Amino acid sequence: MPTSAKARPKPGAVPKVVIIGAGFAGLSAARGLARAPVDVTIVDRQNHHLFQPLLYQVATAALSPADIAAPIRTILRDQANATVILAEVTGIDPKAHEVVTTDGRIPYDRLIVATGARHGYFGRDEWAVHAAGLKRIEDATELRRRILLAFERAEAETDPVRRRALLTFVVIGGGPTGVEMAGAIAELARTGLAREFRRIDPRSARVVLVEAADRLLASFDPALSEAALSALAGLGVEVRVNHPVTDCDQRGVSLGGYRIDAETVVWAAGVMASPAGRWLAAATDKAGRVLVRPDLSLPGRPEVFVIGDTANVAGPDGRPLPGTAPVAKQQGRYVAALVGARLRGRDVPPFRYRDLGMMATIGRKQAIAQFGRIRLKGGVAWVLWSAAHIYFLIGFRNRLAVALNWAWSYATYARGTRLITGAVAQSAGPGPERPHRPPVPSKS
Amino acid sequence: MPTSAKARPKPGAVPKVVIIGAGFAGLSAARGLARAPVDVTIVDRQNHHLFQPLLYQVATAALSPADIAAPIRTILRDQANATVILAEVTGIDPKAHEVVTTDGRIPYDRLIVATGARHGYFGRDEWAVHAAGLKRIEDATELRRRILLAFERAEAETDPVRRRALLTFVVIGGGPTGVEMAGAIAELARTGLAREFRRIDPRSARVVLVEAADRLLASFDPALSEAALSALAGLGVEVRVNHPVTDCDQRGVSLGGYRIDAETVVWAAGVMASPAGRWLAAATDKAGRVLVRPDLSLPGRPEVFVIGDTANVAGPDGRPLPGTAPVAKQQGRYVAALVGARLRGRDVPPFRYRDLGMMATIGRKQAIAQFGRIRLKGGVAWVLWSAAHIYFLIGFRNRLAVALNWAWSYATYARGTRLITGAVAQSAGPGPERPHRPPVPSKS
Repeated sequence: MPTSAKARPKPGAVPKVVIIGAGFAGLSAARGLARAPVDVTIVDRQNHHLFQPLLYQVATAALSPADIAAPIRTILRDQANATVILAEVTGIDPKAHEVVTTDGRIPYDRLIVATGARHGYFGRDEWAVHAAGLKRIEDATELRRRILLAFERAEAETDPVRRRALLTFVVIGGGPTGVEMAGAIAELARTGLAREFRRIDPRSARVVLVEAADRLLASFDPALSEAALSALAGLGVEVRVNHPVTDCDQRGVSLGGYRIDAETVVWAAGVMASPAGRWLAAATDKAGRVLVRPDLSLPGRPEVFVIGDTANVAGPDGRPLPGTAPVAKQQGRYVAALVGARLRGRDVPPFRYRDLGMMATIGRKQAIAQFGRIRLKGGVAWVLWSAAHIYFLIGFRNRLAVALNWAWSYATYARGTRLITGAVAQSAGPGPERPHRPPVPSKS
Repeated sequence: MPTSAKARPKPGAVPKVVIIGAGFAGLSAARGLARAPVDVTIVDRQNHHLFQPLLYQVATAALSPADIAAPIRTILRDQANATVILAEVTGIDPKAHEVVTTDGRIPYDRLIVATGARHGYFGRDEWAVHAAGLKRIEDATELRRRILLAFERAEAETDPVRRRALLTFVVIGGGPTGVEMAGAIAELARTGLAREFRRIDPRSARVVLVEAADRLLASFDPALSEAALSALAGLGVEVRVNHPVTDCDQRGVSLGGYRIDAETVVWAAGVMASPAGRWLAAATDKAGRVLVRPDLSLPGRPEVFVIGDTANVAGPDGRPLPGTAPVAKQQGRYVAALVGARLRGRDVPPFRYRDLGMMATIGRKQAIAQFGRIRLKGGVAWVLWSAAHIYFLIGFRNRLAVALNWAWSYATYARGTRLITGAVAQSAGPGPERPHRPPVPSKS
């Protein structure tokens, strides 16, 4: 078999479709090609598909990583025409029709690029060390470590100013992820940790949600933004709209003239597409998303498709579609259908997004949902949100585990997965000779 | 309150008991002091208590870390006289009656040292990088990463000799941990991963269990050692007794003249006690365990107790008691009772271990158990083993989660937590320009 350049489909040979990325977009494309007369190779640098919409629950110790991730091999086990490769893609050679990986080159006849996005700091990359984003499992366990350690260090801290900063959590970005994170941190402090410390009262933790625009959840109906705001207020979250972040350092964040001293800062404000645009030498928007044709192919390269968070595709209102799971999945299915149809000499109309509605959760029994003209909030929206997320979780085992974890947390207010792994004691204080605050048996 | 040296109990003051380590021994001591007129401070460098006997199931992707760990604060939440401190202990100052931590000094009136043990390499510490041990959560997730990556890399490997080494797993040490690890790796390869690869057959993996002595599980009855051996053989594990390891390097292990090329080596052969003996300037045995008096106190220091894996306590046969959970828990309870009794002016007889029996599991429906003169093996022993481990897991939630994970794995042969986290692609190959093995749709 050819492993070098110029590998073109020979007459009668089975075309090779290579998919980069096993997120929602890439995995949908792979599954959509199950019955097509092609060889599918899906390459990812992780061995697991991640259900990103619930990643904030791992970061706030409600779910375990394995509850929201499943091995890509397991998902595609029974798809005979699919091969899974664990490797990091470092480039694409469109002329040679090859994907370049850390483990060699992979020739393709059709290429589907679904490499997702990372956090973007609007050009202020130095903020990254202070304001942690949330895209991968490792991000979530790192954020969980930071949040739980902040409470631990506050318990050991004698200086009231430092203790206040340790108990202050700033979430930057008022989109769904920011709202969910702020609500989940507040709930963790108010209920999960409430009775477990002797010197601090975790319920006194300050959680601030910061948004540059004039309202939260700008993609939702204004009435639902209001509902989310009052639900957050009910959890004790302080919301600051119209406050763009102007600086972010080791000690906290600056919002113009307003300063918040905070040990823990979560970044949920901006994303930057993967470097696929650069690999393909393609035109991109300023968030790095590749500008594609109406059939999601790369201009001038009809055999290359870009989908999911890496693509800029205009929605019905002319604005780019959001980087959500439904958009990614529909694009994956569309490209799979298109590749299959064209192999049979047919064609399909341009991609059109079918809006299935939007949901965001704030906390226990609080969510908002919007389907066409229907607007839901409170407990009804929360039940719907829970059911939808369990339903869409890939793999029955995970669904069951998540449902049980949620039922348990709901019944007991407990947070079951409060593990700090990785470095712990190193961050717990400046040195061995600082006098320790004497142990006291009851809350001071 | 005094934070400096010479803090002695004033008449009428509540005595301070400091416990170092929240393993089985330390936690049992803390709980045993719940009704004693003392202030208990328990210091650990982790925020969680770990149910170590099931750690091998995390390493082989059957359970999630959170299934077998619970926050120490949660366990002691309702014990009003207990304070939990997250800090790394760096020394003990017995003259000043203080524990030295990374976060300051903690004065004590009574000290209970329960700092456990790490792996020991019989003086060959350079083996540690190749032969991974299994004591902490991070050890287990690292081992899980190595085992799962070995299969991934074998799938990508073209050289049959290298591929063979990638699919060879050597477990060193034929005690309960080694037997359990070898059985679990074999089961993972034979069932959990069986249908998910396209180029390799995971069932062809070679699992070798190496033991220096003349039989496995030397602490059990010889007939049960035989039963374990034949159960392992049924799983396809190759057992080599009478084979002390003479070298261990990046490419595998040497057993005298016999060489095994293996990418993954698990160390389950020896342990070395924590440095507590050095901190206390106490006499130790060659495994670093502190030699204690019959009441588990340090000779010459009646206010200091050493328990669990850190202590050398003679059993009824004169040999030191093994480093097991039942021994640790009984010692913790004993010291708690003794401290309480002496405060009331009474005394208790010397510590005596009550042998509750021993169990070890080999795999699906295979275990051995020994209670006094009763010997059990096969499915009966396995059911007993499962029930006992679920019962002893701390926290009802964990018990439920483990029971469900086991039921699910048993019904489906699936391994639910097969996540590779941390570095992945870096280890996947030597460089970007190696030609990639061409994707093939079916097994070659």
